[in-house]
Amino acid sequence: MNILLVNDDGIDAPGIAKLYEAVRGFGSVTVVAPDGEQSAVGHGITLDKPMPVRTVVRDGLFTGTAVCGTPADCVKLALTEIMDHRPDLVISGINLGCNTGLNVIYSGTVGGAAEAAFNRIPAIAVSLTTYKDPLWETAVRFTRDLVRTVIEQGMPEGIVLNVNIPNVPSAAIAGVMITEQGMAQWKESFSKRVDPKGRTYYWMGGIKKELREKETIDDTAIKNNYISVTPIQFNLTAYDKLEHLKTWDLHYRNED
Amino acid sequence: MNILLVNDDGIDAPGIAKLYEAVRGFGSVTVVAPDGEQSAVGHGITLDKPMPVRTVVRDGLFTGTAVCGTPADCVKLALTEIMDHRPDLVISGINLGCNTGLNVIYSGTVGGAAEAAFNRIPAIAVSLTTYKDPLWETAVRFTRDLVRTVIEQGMPEGIVLNVNIPNVPSAAIAGVMITEQGMAQWKESFSKRVDPKGRTYYWMGGIKKELREKETIDDTAIKNNYISVTPIQFNLTAYDKLEHLKTWDLHYRNED
Repeated sequence: MNILLVNDDGIDAPGIAKLYEAVRGFGSVTVVAPDGEQSAVGHGITLDKPMPVRTVVRDGLFTGTAVCGTPADCVKLALTEIMDHRPDLVISGINLGCNTGLNVIYSGTVGGAAEAAFNRIPAIAVSLTTYKDPLWETAVRFTRDLVRTVIEQGMPEGIVLNVNIPNVPSAAIAGVMITEQGMAQWKESFSKRVDPKGRTYYWMGGIKKELREKETIDDTAIKNNYISVTPIQFNLTAYDKLEHLKTWDLHYRNED
Repeated sequence: MNILLVNDDGIDAPGIAKLYEAVRGFGSVTVVAPDGEQSAVGHGITLDKPMPVRTVVRDGLFTGTAVCGTPADCVKLALTEIMDHRPDLVISGINLGCNTGLNVIYSGTVGGAAEAAFNRIPAIAVSLTTYKDPLWETAVRFTRDLVRTVIEQGMPEGIVLNVNIPNVPSAAIAGVMITEQGMAQWKESFSKRVDPKGRTYYWMGGIKKELREKETIDDTAIKNNYISVTPIQFNLTAYDKLEHLKTWDLHYRNED
């Protein structure tokens, strides 16, 4: 069994080390991850500049490849150049901070896993719902059990399991819920500043706008201390709008 | 009527000037676009570094704001800081190179428009299917007509119209088709090199893998010289997999 690990917090982040601990018993594990933090890069790829790579040794754990690129770049490079065998499973994480609601679209963690799904490789994205004081134990244990289940059951093709784990003590976990992606998003704020040469720049910040959503939505599930598992796919077509748009009777005029 | 223009080829690109030409008759037009090329950044946003901005004058056309950030950053900043009024319409483009199939996920052009759709603002992404020798006339004329239609008809909330225009002479356009996103993707190749200090780096390249897809798929439509208009939305839930995953009976074990 060949497993590829990636993340968006960078190869030196604690989350990928915890992920390695969670899965190393299942087979041969390859780590290819960004050289430094790549959060919120979504599914970006690096087309117009070179991507340096280097070998990184994390003592007592793994020897991996750090790539100056995005999570999606890492998976592309791993599949094409670095791995001798096509992986049987790709796992991205463990991310600090949830990837739920519309944030799924911005998520580098999900972007790395999506790249695997595009190539019909089973893929999981794992996030822990905190930026500080992570309680890794819950995430490590659930990820290990989930990988065992995926190996036993086989994974539907072309999807990512987007997993979000509440950062609560193990005993407080209410259970596991198969959920739908919600529509919650961040409300941005910008801090406007002037640099020493008089030029304007902005820092982006923000807070998550909470929505009242039903129990089976990702954000509601984690708020209720459930581990949220959302199957996501990458055909964005708004099928329910096709017929309406046809009534617009769009056509092309060959002259003004 | 307030219209916001963005792109991913940068504020100096010819495509955004052509887009400006196409829509300036419809109202007040604001341009906020990346300071330099941001292709393939997908829906990335800039969280951990500052975003310098500067005013750019394109003679005889517009005075706009260049942002050292992604298309999504530009739209967030425009909505929050730069525009006095919420725009009635956001248009992203005109991109050089099609944004169809799974490439929609990587597209900065679509990412900028998506950000507007998240905020329930009508949004259009426009791409021309070539990297060189663009035939702008077709794209400009169709975009102008489409904007007129959107103003007249009103746009369904929360979606982007993802428009791809064949780069053929105006007379060769077969018509306009409402399409579905296909599953075509790029097959990457990497060029492996060594820098003067002996360090390895890669350049990503690739070619688009053609799929045989039905006539109403985006890539097929443009191959047949139709202008492709795909409504896209951002709930990625794989609804058809929910019941299957529930049969896995996932649960959380509180102890090993």
